[in-house]
Amino acid sequence: MDWKVHKLKEGIYMITMTDKETRFFEALWEIPEGIQYNAYLLFTNDGSILFDTGPKGSRGFMEALSSVTDPKDVKALIVHHMEPDHSGYIRELLEVNPEIRVISHPISFRLMNSFYGITPSSKTEISDGMSMEVGGERLRFFLTPWLHWPETFVTFIEGVNALTTGDIFGAYSINGDFLKSSAGLSDQFYLWSMKKYFVNVIGAYRTHVVNAINKIKRLGIYPELILPAHGIAFYGRDSLERLLSIYENWASCSEKNEVVIVLTSMYGFTEEIAREVSAFLEEVPIKHRIFKFTSKGRDEFSEAIAAMQDAQGIIMISSTYENSPHPIIEYLADLMEKKLCRGKKLLLIGTYAWGGGSLATLTNSQTMAGFSISKIIPVNSMMTKSDRDNIREALREMFELTRF
Amino acid sequence: MDWKVHKLKEGIYMITMTDKETRFFEALWEIPEGIQYNAYLLFTNDGSILFDTGPKGSRGFMEALSSVTDPKDVKALIVHHMEPDHSGYIRELLEVNPEIRVISHPISFRLMNSFYGITPSSKTEISDGMSMEVGGERLRFFLTPWLHWPETFVTFIEGVNALTTGDIFGAYSINGDFLKSSAGLSDQFYLWSMKKYFVNVIGAYRTHVVNAINKIKRLGIYPELILPAHGIAFYGRDSLERLLSIYENWASCSEKNEVVIVLTSMYGFTEEIAREVSAFLEEVPIKHRIFKFTSKGRDEFSEAIAAMQDAQGIIMISSTYENSPHPIIEYLADLMEKKLCRGKKLLLIGTYAWGGGSLATLTNSQTMAGFSISKIIPVNSMMTKSDRDNIREALREMFELTRF
Repeated sequence: MDWKVHKLKEGIYMITMTDKETRFFEALWEIPEGIQYNAYLLFTNDGSILFDTGPKGSRGFMEALSSVTDPKDVKALIVHHMEPDHSGYIRELLEVNPEIRVISHPISFRLMNSFYGITPSSKTEISDGMSMEVGGERLRFFLTPWLHWPETFVTFIEGVNALTTGDIFGAYSINGDFLKSSAGLSDQFYLWSMKKYFVNVIGAYRTHVVNAINKIKRLGIYPELILPAHGIAFYGRDSLERLLSIYENWASCSEKNEVVIVLTSMYGFTEEIAREVSAFLEEVPIKHRIFKFTSKGRDEFSEAIAAMQDAQGIIMISSTYENSPHPIIEYLADLMEKKLCRGKKLLLIGTYAWGGGSLATLTNSQTMAGFSISKIIPVNSMMTKSDRDNIREALREMFELTRF
Repeated sequence: MDWKVHKLKEGIYMITMTDKETRFFEALWEIPEGIQYNAYLLFTNDGSILFDTGPKGSRGFMEALSSVTDPKDVKALIVHHMEPDHSGYIRELLEVNPEIRVISHPISFRLMNSFYGITPSSKTEISDGMSMEVGGERLRFFLTPWLHWPETFVTFIEGVNALTTGDIFGAYSINGDFLKSSAGLSDQFYLWSMKKYFVNVIGAYRTHVVNAINKIKRLGIYPELILPAHGIAFYGRDSLERLLSIYENWASCSEKNEVVIVLTSMYGFTEEIAREVSAFLEEVPIKHRIFKFTSKGRDEFSEAIAAMQDAQGIIMISSTYENSPHPIIEYLADLMEKKLCRGKKLLLIGTYAWGGGSLATLTNSQTMAGFSISKIIPVNSMMTKSDRDNIREALREMFELTRF
């Protein structure tokens, strides 16, 4: 993997490894934009402190580290969570320098053993709110359990006024930029990569996100540097507040934006319906995105699920497959159930040939239990005039439109 | 789409359209090998009879047909089933020549209307065993319901001694060959394409396959030509018996061949386990294939499900994802439940970090109800000596090995 080392400010460095090989993050999410893994290195008056390492199974991290310090001079390693995309070099590091004091959550030490067979000779178990001095630098640790692993915590580095956040505020994508003001975040720049990562990877734990936000807010810290384990680092004392507020929005699903239409299509009938739905939404107008999973190709599940995050409504159009919803729609429904807010408004439209309305089985199942199904409309292959009327009526109800 | 017209013997032609664009057959199955759609044209002493047409949404069929006959000279159209990959040109054909007598199952005429808004002016509803003369040619129709649509039937053409079989005996792949002896079928040649198509597309209806086989056997016909709607046509009076026996084997799952190992891997732990399993099976030796769904890439679901068809055992190795089996394993389990024989032997191995053995949830669910689970083995990330022993012991039990 390509690596780079960036100086963030006097005494603190960012070690980035860029991954263009992973096609499916978590063996699940398409990431043509790639992903980057960040570790951080703080120089103290007695050697350095390393915050996380690089991904398991990659090459280059030790070389990157050595380009900025002798690994033998690393005095302490903070392990924010044990997910192997950040803990992959602990073993190699301890082989080179067995004296390193490993500072982490008690669960991490158990996982270090079960992942890598490691028992560090010097280990310090942190607890919530704990503060300690390492090489003259004061570190404060705050547990953020289930973001997105149980042992997750963040570290406030008082001297350089920085907060390392692990996967929190991370993103997909590989950027030329490594340090930006969070004020520059926009739908056009980077925010989508952050949101996609949030929904895909952290989405299932959104109640824990709210807890963590409230906790961090109460700390009353204003770090100048926010240092996530993926993507760009942020500067500016207002960054933490801004990032927390973005996460708060996502976690609570308070936005009600673009409608998302997803469809499977074997022979084009559902695509006809999507065109009808789209035409109606354009008349209103209501912004919408369409994700297609057809015989000709597939949009990305990672994008579709991320787009659903802030959708004011989701319209699923499925062909019937052996008397059930199409397996790809069942798969999507499973991901939606895992990752999205409860109560999201759904309209289900199912085409069928000789069977009946298969989408009812989707709603009977546990899978769709968390959603607010506004209607289920069966369509016998090609839409009739009355199907079109039903669909328009359902959309009117769904979006509480009186004018249309 | 590219098309070709082949003369099979005096009076009967095969019209093939080759499809290299469809990436997912049924919006589900990866088919890099492509697929071909066949229609057949029989010349009579009063115009011609067309058996099926070409795929909905394609171009070229009318041109192909016109290259061998004036569409106005087509007197009758037999529609073996209404799936749009064969019924896509009925509308265009009837526009050019509204006089065509459409001969099909009663359900087909209902579907013609709901798919394409067509009500042929001349229609003949067939029933099981019905025989009729068209242009001096005797046709006999035999219902084969649920292979794989409810209205499916086959037609025996007495004069040329041919049996058109619709999707039955169809295959994926695009071949230079169009007519072969079924005696040449082998694992190396074409049989895998047939099996893959069978399991993917017809697998869910295997009990109906057995019924159809018994019925066709009792007819006592020995067609010289077997004319499927996909892939190669076959010649030779022994072809029907040979093909029926192949289908009988597949439908009853009487073969017990290569073991199939499937795995999802986020960080490599499950791949370690697969290597261990594979090493053990090689010692015995038991032939096996491994299908991987990892962060680096995915094997094809179409191949994996087809390989499971005749496997003497299936070993699923899943990472734990948010306290459940990995979503890709859940998706695979869903396809397996839909397509494979009941009672297939399964060994489930699930890695976990901080959660427990997630694979138990897979077996509690309806999804795995049809399988014979020989054991569930949880592994805490990296295999220990005792995990290795457990896995080997489970494999010994699964394959009733006393020597190992």
